[in-house]
Amino acid sequence: MQSGELGNWPVSTKITVQWGDLDALNHVNHTVFLTWMETARMIYFEKCRMLELWRPERIGPILAGIKADYKSPVKFPDTVTVETTISRLGNSSFDMEYRIMSEEQGGMLVATGTVFGVMCDYKTGKSTIIPDELRSRIFGVERSVKS
Amino acid sequence: MQSGELGNWPVSTKITVQWGDLDALNHVNHTVFLTWMETARMIYFEKCRMLELWRPERIGPILAGIKADYKSPVKFPDTVTVETTISRLGNSSFDMEYRIMSEEQGGMLVATGTVFGVMCDYKTGKSTIIPDELRSRIFGVERSVKS
Amino acid sequence: MQSGELGNWPVSTKITVQWGDLDALNHVNHTVFLTWMETARMIYFEKCRMLELWRPERIGPILAGIKADYKSPVKFPDTVTVETTISRLGNSSFDMEYRIMSEEQGGMLVATGTVFGVMCDYKTGKSTIIPDELRSRIFGVERSVKS
Amino acid sequence: MQSGELGNWPVSTKITVQWGDLDALNHVNHTVFLTWMETARMIYFEKCRMLELWRPERIGPILAGIKADYKSPVKFPDTVTVETTISRLGNSSFDMEYRIMSEEQGGMLVATGTVFGVMCDYKTGKSTIIPDELRSRIFGVERSVKS
Repeated sequence: MQSGELGNWPVSTKITVQWGDLDALNHVNHTVFLTWMETARMIYFEKCRMLELWRPERIGPILAGIKADYKSPVKFPDTVTVETTISRLGNSSFDMEYRIMSEEQGGMLVATGTVFGVMCDYKTGKSTIIPDELRSRIFGVERSVKS
Repeated sequence: MQSGELGNWPVSTKITVQWGDLDALNHVNHTVFLTWMETARMIYFEKCRMLELWRPERIGPILAGIKADYKSPVKFPDTVTVETTISRLGNSSFDMEYRIMSEEQGGMLVATGTVFGVMCDYKTGKSTIIPDELRSRIFGVERSVKS
Repeated sequence: MQSGELGNWPVSTKITVQWGDLDALNHVNHTVFLTWMETARMIYFEKCRMLELWRPERIGPILAGIKADYKSPVKFPDTVTVETTISRLGNSSFDMEYRIMSEEQGGMLVATGTVFGVMCDYKTGKSTIIPDELRSRIFGVERSVKS
Repeated sequence: MQSGELGNWPVSTKITVQWGDLDALNHVNHTVFLTWMETARMIYFEKCRMLELWRPERIGPILAGIKADYKSPVKFPDTVTVETTISRLGNSSFDMEYRIMSEEQGGMLVATGTVFGVMCDYKTGKSTIIPDELRSRIFGVERSVKS
């Protein structure tokens, strides 16, 4: 794998902040940022057909861990942009990074996050090798922003 | 159907109020009351095996409508009790009623609701007759509180 | 009040469906539709300055009841449009109607709703008259779509 | 500070899993675990009066970051126990740890988490020293389980 093949932030999506996202402190609740990241993740998964082996073989990713840093509170109304990229692709695991920007705050970065994913064989309950075809498609998605 | 066979409030469940249920007005958000009702509904569905025909025949209930009246705001911390009953059982539709009581408010009724359900054949997308066996099990669940 | 002064659907907002809005049935959970309506409601409230008397006099609206009809399930990904209007303005209460359309379903109506609001004096905990100035602003918002 | 003065897991709370907590994969959504941790955090904050300086001086904690590890999926119905402790208390920051156990899984650990908190002076927007009195109360809460 060459430098630059991953970590290119190929997926970006805009999400409307809702009034109900606010908590009693009048800021968007910290869990909502993770819901936004999840939406971006599912768009990425769709692009690289991450879930293709789920039906025939019951192989698919599990979310093993998550990390988030909160830099600035978000209020209502606002629209956020969530970007995501796969920044590391191991034998059976991968890291996805996220960054969230607020339109009302002039595009300022309000949070970052990382999700630790593991490819899992649900028949055995154990981790399994990320298939070469999926690996190629992930590189394809990451390269798509370079053109 | 005789009077007294339905509307007996056979299902009751206690649910912990969470801090994140509060919205920017510092009260539990109005949508959370519907999530509580849904939890009670699923416990009722389990008891009468409402979803038994889903796998073999793709017949199951759909939520056609909902109505809720809010009587008193709920705060954190608290524990609510949600009770539910089927109050009407038509050929292919039914009404489920809900009442929610707050422990912190001395068991006072804080909200009531009604869900309008329709038995649906997902193969055709049309409503279908509620099978006699399911009908019997519903009467059984409702009668269970009388003993 | 003349016919046509209310019910003009002056507020419309687009909201991104998120993957986390789906429930175990793989449809957007029925409570999420109410969160969407609430977002549209807060945009309307902002336009007519519904909450202007909250700080000085602790007078503001409470949500007394809600009604929703579900017409078609919504999936991910999608963008919904939520429209709202005040359709009835009584002495101390009002009705707000909602309609939700799905972009993925060609703009088809997927749900409708009504919220029953009451103007409340939080100092006494009782309902109170909707002030004439607020009433004028509501008519102003409703008329704004006619020009 | 002596070893053993922190990290004693003094706060424990039971929370009902709700059907609506499930996502399209039929497991409790990963964000819900963070809502559970938040509920335990607010109970801890109440015990040590963490928010006491909010009204008079606008000094209070902010959530700067979060980390979670998911060990086993949770299903409905279930009841989880969430335990929390302050494991590190710096000059102006602190770490809170969480562990979540599932009743249905025989009390098995299903997730762990850490929240990175910073004491913030909202008047200046900057971090500030954790007052000695609050520090004493935190040690008091942590010690309370030793007796």
